[in-house]
Amino acid sequence: MSAPATGFVLHARLAADSVAVGLLALSELRLMNDARFPWLILVPRIADISDYTALPARAQAALWDEIGRCAQALKALYAPTRVNIGLLGNLVPQLHAHVVARFDHDAAWPGPVWGSGPAVAYDPSAATACVRAIGRALDC
Amino acid sequence: MSAPATGFVLHARLAADSVAVGLLALSELRLMNDARFPWLILVPRIADISDYTALPARAQAALWDEIGRCAQALKALYAPTRVNIGLLGNLVPQLHAHVVARFDHDAAWPGPVWGSGPAVAYDPSAATACVRAIGRALDC
Repeated sequence: MSAPATGFVLHARLAADSVAVGLLALSELRLMNDARFPWLILVPRIADISDYTALPARAQAALWDEIGRCAQALKALYAPTRVNIGLLGNLVPQLHAHVVARFDHDAAWPGPVWGSGPAVAYDPSAATACVRAIGRALDC
Repeated sequence: MSAPATGFVLHARLAADSVAVGLLALSELRLMNDARFPWLILVPRIADISDYTALPARAQAALWDEIGRCAQALKALYAPTRVNIGLLGNLVPQLHAHVVARFDHDAAWPGPVWGSGPAVAYDPSAATACVRAIGRALDC
C-alpha cells in the first residue's frame, strides 16, 4: 500500500490501530479499528513529513480535496449528525488527517473522539464490510 | 466585524467564548478566551452554513489557505510543539475551524483541547497583547 520509491513508510502506530482501505492520489486511506465511530485516516504518502504547513501547496490542495471526498462518502454511507475533521499529531508525528462520522448518540458525543477511551475493535466481517463500502464510495 | 450584506451573524456561543482579532478574506478571525492555549477560531463569513462540504470550492480553498496562514503565524509567534487543526461543530453548528498551538507541557497534552475542562480567561492586558501580535502577524 505504501509508495516505497518515495521512502514513505506508514507509522507503526497508525498501522497497528487501523486497517487499509486503499490509495487515493496523495494519501493512503485507512479505517480506524474502532467500531464506535466510522473513522477514516488519510496519510499523505510523502516521506518524513509531520507538519501540514510543510506540505507543498499542490499537496495541501490534494489533501483537502481528499478530506472533502471522505467527508462526503461518510455522509452518504452513514448519514451522521456531523463529520469531524482533525489534524493533530500529538501522539503520532507522521502527518495524517482524521475524518470521522459523528452521531448525537455516539460514545463520545459531543466531545471529540480523540482521548475518548479505548477503541472497540470491529468484528472482522464488519471491518471487511466497512472497508469495502468505503472503498467503493471513494473508488479506491 | 461581520459582513451584514451577506446575512452572516456570528454564533452567540463563539462570540461569548472568543475575542475579535480581525478579518481575513473569507473568515472572521477570533482568539479563544482561554489563556491555557494560543487558540484561533476562523469563521467563514457566509450565512447559514454549517458543513464544510457545503462550502463552494473556492471558499474551501480560501479557508484552507487561511488555516495554513494561521498555523504559520502561531508557529512563528509561539514555537509550539505542534499545531492542531480541527473542524468539529458538535456544540456550535456554525461552520468554524480551530487552529491551536500545542505544547508538550500544556494543560491538555497529548489530548485534544476540546473537552479539556473549563477555559481560563486571559487577563485583559494579556488578551490585548495576544490579539495585537496575531493581528500583526496576519496583517488583519
